[in-house]
Formats: sequence, structure tokens, C-alpha cells
Amino acid sequence: MFENTDKTNINELGEFGLIDHLTKNFEIKKSTTVKGIGDDAAVLNPGDKKVLISTDMLLEGIHFDLAYTPLKHLGYKAIQVNLSDIFAMNAIPQQVTVSIGMSSKYTLEAIEDLYEGIYVACEKYGVDLIGGDTTASKQGLVISVTVLGYADEKDITYRNGAEEGDLICVSGDLGGAYVGLQLLEREKMVYLENPNIQPDLEGKDYIVERQLKPEARVDVVDLLKSRGIKPTAMIDVSDGLASELLHICKQSNKGCNLYEEKIPIDPMTYDTAREFNLDPTVCALSGGEDYELLFTIKQTDYDKIKHDVDVSIIGYITEPAAGLNLISKSGQVHELKAQGWNAFE
Amino acid sequence: MFENTDKTNINELGEFGLIDHLTKNFEIKKSTTVKGIGDDAAVLNPGDKKVLISTDMLLEGIHFDLAYTPLKHLGYKAIQVNLSDIFAMNAIPQQVTVSIGMSSKYTLEAIEDLYEGIYVACEKYGVDLIGGDTTASKQGLVISVTVLGYADEKDITYRNGAEEGDLICVSGDLGGAYVGLQLLEREKMVYLENPNIQPDLEGKDYIVERQLKPEARVDVVDLLKSRGIKPTAMIDVSDGLASELLHICKQSNKGCNLYEEKIPIDPMTYDTAREFNLDPTVCALSGGEDYELLFTIKQTDYDKIKHDVDVSIIGYITEPAAGLNLISKSGQVHELKAQGWNAFE
Repeated sequence: MFENTDKTNINELGEFGLIDHLTKNFEIKKSTTVKGIGDDAAVLNPGDKKVLISTDMLLEGIHFDLAYTPLKHLGYKAIQVNLSDIFAMNAIPQQVTVSIGMSSKYTLEAIEDLYEGIYVACEKYGVDLIGGDTTASKQGLVISVTVLGYADEKDITYRNGAEEGDLICVSGDLGGAYVGLQLLEREKMVYLENPNIQPDLEGKDYIVERQLKPEARVDVVDLLKSRGIKPTAMIDVSDGLASELLHICKQSNKGCNLYEEKIPIDPMTYDTAREFNLDPTVCALSGGEDYELLFTIKQTDYDKIKHDVDVSIIGYITEPAAGLNLISKSGQVHELKAQGWNAFE
Repeated sequence: MFENTDKTNINELGEFGLIDHLTKNFEIKKSTTVKGIGDDAAVLNPGDKKVLISTDMLLEGIHFDLAYTPLKHLGYKAIQVNLSDIFAMNAIPQQVTVSIGMSSKYTLEAIEDLYEGIYVACEKYGVDLIGGDTTASKQGLVISVTVLGYADEKDITYRNGAEEGDLICVSGDLGGAYVGLQLLEREKMVYLENPNIQPDLEGKDYIVERQLKPEARVDVVDLLKSRGIKPTAMIDVSDGLASELLHICKQSNKGCNLYEEKIPIDPMTYDTAREFNLDPTVCALSGGEDYELLFTIKQTDYDKIKHDVDVSIIGYITEPAAGLNLISKSGQVHELKAQGWNAFE
């Protein structure tokens, strides 16, 4: 992929030259950004807001496979997964730092693709790139992103605020990113066995995009604000619905009833899961990487949101003694367990 | 190093269990920390200060060699190199996030050592650990740290404020970390050739410690404050004196005269450099990792600092047309060049 010798070798630029080159089109847009790239630290002026900070690391071979992940998409996704954490606090992201470790075999053009994706995501969500670190890596590609967001104290939504009777809501649909990954993995195997066979992803754009190019749900944060709803608890779906709901219940010290039939699953996700002999519900519960928002609202807010097709009400919060329950389509009650992604297995 | 099978395998804990376990002794100390670990993002309340943010990534095989780097020292150093960036802005660090990527072959006890070093550094400098990410790595150990600091706008010292006639100052001594690294590398080679020969580091504690366990110079920031001196420009010495001074001159659009004979070099650094047939001045100019503070002050501040033995005055700032000059001990004028560390070479 990176063996074209017409390309520019990054060690010709050196670290500072590379940073200058890659970041020259990133303009400062936010009034809270006093000083961005180019000193020992960036300087921010939050005014009278609270500052929120979150960080995520993406490692080659663990979080992405360059065999089927275009670098531009990877840069875009690295920003999205971080923005999603700030939206999950009901806050607005404004700055990111990006640290990259990469092998010296990468050409400048390859790294430019990565930064192009970062740039598109920053532009789309109006965030400033304000710093980072760029270094060689002996092994795979390493991307570490930190995001800063701002909110008034009264607007911040933690995981621990769910109350008995609150409705459990989720945006969009679930399981697609995981099923998309299975598809990409299968086509990679087919290709490795016979490079003459072209990948067969026809008609599967939606779930492939769910995996490669997720969108953090700023629109859901905006929707809730416009309807005058402050969620009582919120988290983004990175590890799977079950794991996230358990986080909310554990931190709020509550139980839950989650209804399988209410979990939103796109028809393509459903059908493709079946092709792989996977249970679509399990894909939604444990697949992860959907970057939808899972949140709880007071019952009195139900009328404000009931007609929004992009938000599904999937259950409700109970007293802790009632347990953590998944009610299946046939009406059976199962204990809800997080079998989500464990990076160490 | 990590093959003792009595130890605890980290995949038994899972990601969330591991984070809980490793961070349970990190208590929140700062009033600016509203919410630390445990939600989608940490929440900070900076009051009416400016917020400063900096980030550094350390990769196995590039920035450290576990053959001679104890994990506890590595954790300590990872925090120090980040704190140093905030001190270099004349500000006070208060929070850090730490993201770790590691092979599943690491035992829990090994990662605890790493976090013990992080803990000691956080306690010593009074900073709160407020978040991060913990993931598997297919290859080497990856550490990415982000630090947040605070300062009044009037106190922040950028790289671009040096004026003609300002004195160039540096804290401590230079080149030791680089020469210490040469020593560690040599002893590693001797050991690899014959494991029966014990490393010979006797009497070399100082330079070994400069490499493995650097100290960010909060005392210099405090000293300047107590003397009523605000540096006109400041940077920390991570890539070598030459590279850092060129950053200040370039960003301030000035020239400089740097005097070789004034560059502070510890006798052990000097002698050991000579043993390796290295020029001690080159080690100071290009070695890096000293984490001393390089700063410029107005001439009128000279009397306030002239008796401080831990601060050396090594030259002065000139008009840009005068160029970037290194005046050797014999009085010859050379162009100052950054041959510092390039991670891509």
C-alpha cells in the first residue's frame, strides 16, 4: 500500500517540518482557543463554562486493520470517537489534540490522507486542532486523540443520574458497525486466499460505513436541547448496548428492564447478521462501535420526543433490587450481561 | 522480565476492572477537578484562569528500551516530560490523562509498577489523574499522556517574546540524559554478548538518573516568580539546547549569540562523554531529554538572578540579521544548527 517510491519519505521533513506541513490548513475557529499548535502547550480560555476532556487511543491491529481501512476514514473516525464522548456528556467539543506514531515506511502522502480525514471531521464539527505529538513507531500505526468540550454546569449529563421510572432511549440503530466489521473481515480473508477475487461489498454501503466512518451524534444533543430535555444520564455506545446500560445502572445504583423487541436494528444489519449466523440482538448488545447515544429521560419528557423516529425507547429504569433484565421477544427474562469487547482477550 | 506465571494476567480483569484497579489510589486533590475518571469525559472548572494543554506520546523501541528502563521509572518519566511542557509556559499543571496500550503478555504486577511511577509523580507534583484509555497493543508498550495546566494570562510565557538584548538562561546542566543513554546502551550490548557480565554503572548514578528519572523544573518556575521575573520567552529542553534556542529565535524573529564556554555541563557528563569519544558540547546542544528550562530575561532582571548557581546565562538575543551564532571556546563563530533528535531517522 505504501511502497510507491515516487512518494515523499517523511524523514526528509523531520518532526517539526512534518507537523508544520500537516497542520498548515487547520485554522483556529473557536474564541476559546487562545494559542494552538506551536508552543510547549496550547492555551484555552473557557470563560465561565466547565471544561470537559476525554481521550481515546487507536492501535493498528487492535482497533483498525489497514487492509480495509482507508487512512482518510481512519483519521475521520479517530476524531468522531472522541467527539462522541463529549456529546455523551451533553456538551460541545471545541478542541482536539492528535498524537501519531507511525513507521518511517509511511510516505508523506499516506499521512496526508490520515490528516485529510482529521481535517474533514474538524471542519464538519467546528473543532480546532490545537496540538499533539508526531513520532516514529517501530511497529504499527498509533493514534491518540484528546478532545476538550465546554458546557454550563447545569447542562452536563453524567452517567449516574438515572432515576427509577426513567425511560431508556437510544439514538439511531445498533449492531451495524459490528456486522460491517464481520463483512470486511470476511472479504479480507477471501482476498488473501485469492487476490483475483474482488471484495463483494455491493449493496452493503450502510453497514460498511457504520464501521469505517461513524458519525458522532451532535444532532441528538441539539434535538434534546431544542425540545427542552435534559437527559438524566447519558453515555455513548462504544462497547455495545449491554455494557453501556450496565454502566448507567451501576453508577446510578439502579436496575433496568430492557426490551429486546424495542432495540433498533437496521434491516441490512439484521439480514447480514443472519448471513453470518449471528443473532442480530447479540450484535446490538455486544458489538459496539455504533457511537449512538444511550440516555435516560424522565417520563414527563416522553411527549416531547415520542414522534422522533431517530430515537427509540427501549426500556426503563427500575429500583436496584429488581435487577438488570433483558426481556426477550418471547417474554422471557434474562439477566443483562456485558459480553462486550474486551481488548485484552 | 514478565514471564513469571505466578503473576496475574491482565485479561482476567477486563478493561474496566483494570482501570478501576490501577486508579483506585489516585485521589482528586485539585479544586479545579469537578469529575475525574469514570464518565465519558472528565469535567474541570478553571475559574478565571486560562487552561493550558499539552500531550506527549512514548513508544517502546523509540523513546524507551525496557531492557534497562524499570516500568516504575517509565511511568514517572512519562508524567515528568508532560509537566515540563506546562512549566515551560510558566504555568502550573493540575491534571493529567494517561492512555496505555500494552501487550496482553504483561502481568498485572508489571502494569502496577508503571502506575506506581505515575502515582509517585502525580503525588509529588500535586496533579490529579482524571482519565485515559487502556487497551491491548499487538506490539510494544504505548504511553500517551495529556496534561492540563492553569495560569493567569499575564503570567503565560510563550516562545515568541524574546527581545534584542535579552539574556539567554538555562537551568541545571545539559547533556547528561544523552550521555546516560549511551552508557545504558553500551551496558545492554555487553550484557547481550555475555549475560554473565554485570552492568557497570558504578559511580554513574547522576547521568543514569538524568536519563531514566528526569525531574520537571517546577522549582525554577517558583524561583522566577519569587524573584519577580517573568521570562520574555521560555521552552523546555527536550530535543537539545540548539533546537530549543532556534525555536525561540524563529518564533520571536530574532538572532542569538550562544557561548559554548557558558553551557552548563556536569563533570560526570563531561568525563563520560569523553570516554565515548563524544564532544560534551555536542551532547548538550543536540542530546535532548534534559527537561531543563531555557528562557530569556530582560537585562534589567539580571541582578535578581545572578547569584543563583542553578541558572546559567549562556548568551543573548540579537537582531535577526546578526544570525544564529555559536561562539566556540576558541572564539570562532559557527552557525547554530539543530541536529537534535529526529524520531524519523
